[in-house]
Amino acid sequence: MFYQTTITLPTLRLKALLSLLIKVGTQAKEKGIDDATILDYRLIADMFPLVKQIQIATDNAKGMASRLAHREIPQYEDTETTLAALQARLQKTIDYLATFTEDDFADAATAEAHFPYFKDVHMVGADYVIGYGLPNFFFHVVTAYDILRQHGFEVWKGDYMDGSLIPFVPNAV
Amino acid sequence: MFYQTTITLPTLRLKALLSLLIKVGTQAKEKGIDDATILDYRLIADMFPLVKQIQIATDNAKGMASRLAHREIPQYEDTETTLAALQARLQKTIDYLATFTEDDFADAATAEAHFPYFKDVHMVGADYVIGYGLPNFFFHVVTAYDILRQHGFEVWKGDYMDGSLIPFVPNAV
Repeated sequence: MFYQTTITLPTLRLKALLSLLIKVGTQAKEKGIDDATILDYRLIADMFPLVKQIQIATDNAKGMASRLAHREIPQYEDTETTLAALQARLQKTIDYLATFTEDDFADAATAEAHFPYFKDVHMVGADYVIGYGLPNFFFHVVTAYDILRQHGFEVWKGDYMDGSLIPFVPNAV
Repeated sequence: MFYQTTITLPTLRLKALLSLLIKVGTQAKEKGIDDATILDYRLIADMFPLVKQIQIATDNAKGMASRLAHREIPQYEDTETTLAALQARLQKTIDYLATFTEDDFADAATAEAHFPYFKDVHMVGADYVIGYGLPNFFFHVVTAYDILRQHGFEVWKGDYMDGSLIPFVPNAV
């Protein structure tokens, strides 16, 4: 299950988020809204802005894959100030996930996930993915969408779901 | 993987959402906000309100489990008008998910997921869960949280994640 939950699933969502940001970029130009304004959009004053939601979503994706495959987590500097830079960060993460194969997760069931803010405890394998990794990842992906939607961009749930990425099978006639 | 992605994961999130709604109910009483107002909260005029987000999240959870286990999907009437009724709907769904065992998913890899709005195509097994079922479920769970957060309730990401539900393992000393 680890390849599908940790590579396939996040890759599909990051690709959809990348398409969404490209669409938003076009609409922002038409509306004359600058990138800095968009990157700072948030749902309420004490929630993270769009830029941070996407930074964390990509951190979650590269972190989850790396921890389960016993690789060192690539460090990104959180310096994005434009939509283009956020799009590049998404693409870089998609490319990083593409370097993993099923074999990388051979020992994932016993891999330990340690975090500085869980000082005395850690999570293991599937418990980490199911109870923490995926919920955390989706939190930031969906909130990024919600921020853009709530600020009036013409983006729709279909953009978030990006159905074209799902393998569909024709129904029998 | 199917039991974990389809029962364990949604159960953890629905339980967290139930605790969240109980917390919100207490705060609403203190603030003198009636249930009808809260159930109709939304992020923007043309997005679904809170009540619908939770109805769909529970529909997704019972639908995904039922389709993969070849069970008939229990039908709920969408008639909730109070927080208590929404909490009951969450609990009913948690209880329904608890009726499944690992064995119910023995044939899940080849189970077909058909939807009226995908007229000519369907999805199969893991593709359905990874590409459609989980992203759809999380969309509505996270958006429900975002709606409550954006409307000023004192709920936090920790409530959404509900860390107490994750099996933690003590670090070696």
